[in-house]
Amino acid sequence: MTTSGASAPRLTPKGMATRRRIVEGAAEEIRGRGVTATTLDDIRARTATSKSQIFHYFPGGKEELLLAVAAREAERVLEDQEPHLSGLGTWSAWQDWRDAVVRRYERQGVNCPLGMLITELGRATPAAQALTGQLIRQWQSALYTGIRRMQDSGEIDRQLDADRTAAALVAAVQGGVTILMSTGAITHLEAALDTTLTLLRTAAPAAR
Amino acid sequence: MTTSGASAPRLTPKGMATRRRIVEGAAEEIRGRGVTATTLDDIRARTATSKSQIFHYFPGGKEELLLAVAAREAERVLEDQEPHLSGLGTWSAWQDWRDAVVRRYERQGVNCPLGMLITELGRATPAAQALTGQLIRQWQSALYTGIRRMQDSGEIDRQLDADRTAAALVAAVQGGVTILMSTGAITHLEAALDTTLTLLRTAAPAAR
Repeated sequence: MTTSGASAPRLTPKGMATRRRIVEGAAEEIRGRGVTATTLDDIRARTATSKSQIFHYFPGGKEELLLAVAAREAERVLEDQEPHLSGLGTWSAWQDWRDAVVRRYERQGVNCPLGMLITELGRATPAAQALTGQLIRQWQSALYTGIRRMQDSGEIDRQLDADRTAAALVAAVQGGVTILMSTGAITHLEAALDTTLTLLRTAAPAAR
Repeated sequence: MTTSGASAPRLTPKGMATRRRIVEGAAEEIRGRGVTATTLDDIRARTATSKSQIFHYFPGGKEELLLAVAAREAERVLEDQEPHLSGLGTWSAWQDWRDAVVRRYERQGVNCPLGMLITELGRATPAAQALTGQLIRQWQSALYTGIRRMQDSGEIDRQLDADRTAAALVAAVQGGVTILMSTGAITHLEAALDTTLTLLRTAAPAAR
């Protein structure tokens, strides 16, 4: 992916650490100030870097830096669901994951850093689409793995389409969060998650 | 709601028709050109109106007009689901509604006029939030009515929480459409709708 630095020069470990520090600082600045109000000067001041350093690590300037920040925020979306997302092997783990997702977005409220960055970069641009597409695939893949584990241990009927159900779960979260961003209310996220999880439970062989 | 003209002067039937014509013309212009590229002059040219007419009907200028267009696009979201949305009394009606929703968003593709308008107006502004909130309430209320009809006729178990399931359905569509706008793929919308509808079917008393 271009966001992980295909267009950036090959970096030493020290260079990679500096680049990472700039991205993290920019992410904090943008979280606090909003993406449109944040200038390269704000980011330079926060990360104590020079203009030439910024352009060394991000030859494409602000847009390339914003894309790297968006990639970092996308990673965070998944990190914030750990350790639950990687451990979906029991019903209580699914419930813990559900609670962690609700808490994360409740905390975040109406301002989604990734959403704002994607809007700023242009949702329909190839770079933004590649980034969103990868996040959705990774997320769906983790949920798919969880559903398969439950099927392997006999907790969920093998006839349930694991990939389609994982896709529905990702869409449920996305829809709930989009409505949260528009209305400030968490109820749709909870309803969408719980309804889809109820379906998973209904697909338990014992419940048939 | 301010969008239906609380700040506009009281209008005669003829005035209301002219206002409506401006909103419809602006909506078409924005659908073709995109919201950021559309100027008041473009809208005046398409609707054959003068500057003073525009400001007579929309004293707040472009922003007020955009809000009226957003309100019109929100109405369309629901209109495009008719006659299915108001007739959700049988399983085949639910299936027809599901197909109509998928077809509508498949046709629309990555460019959601309402989404672009809300982004332009500022998702977090009170006017945009009021508009989105009302659309979600109306949509959810129509789905709630449909679920209640199925419960009254004994097709769905009365223990199912109709309002929460309606909320989950709205979130499923919203999530599927948001992912469609980001990736161009309709699969998540289909998976989210079908998964939630499967739950409805599983809640049929006969299936218990």
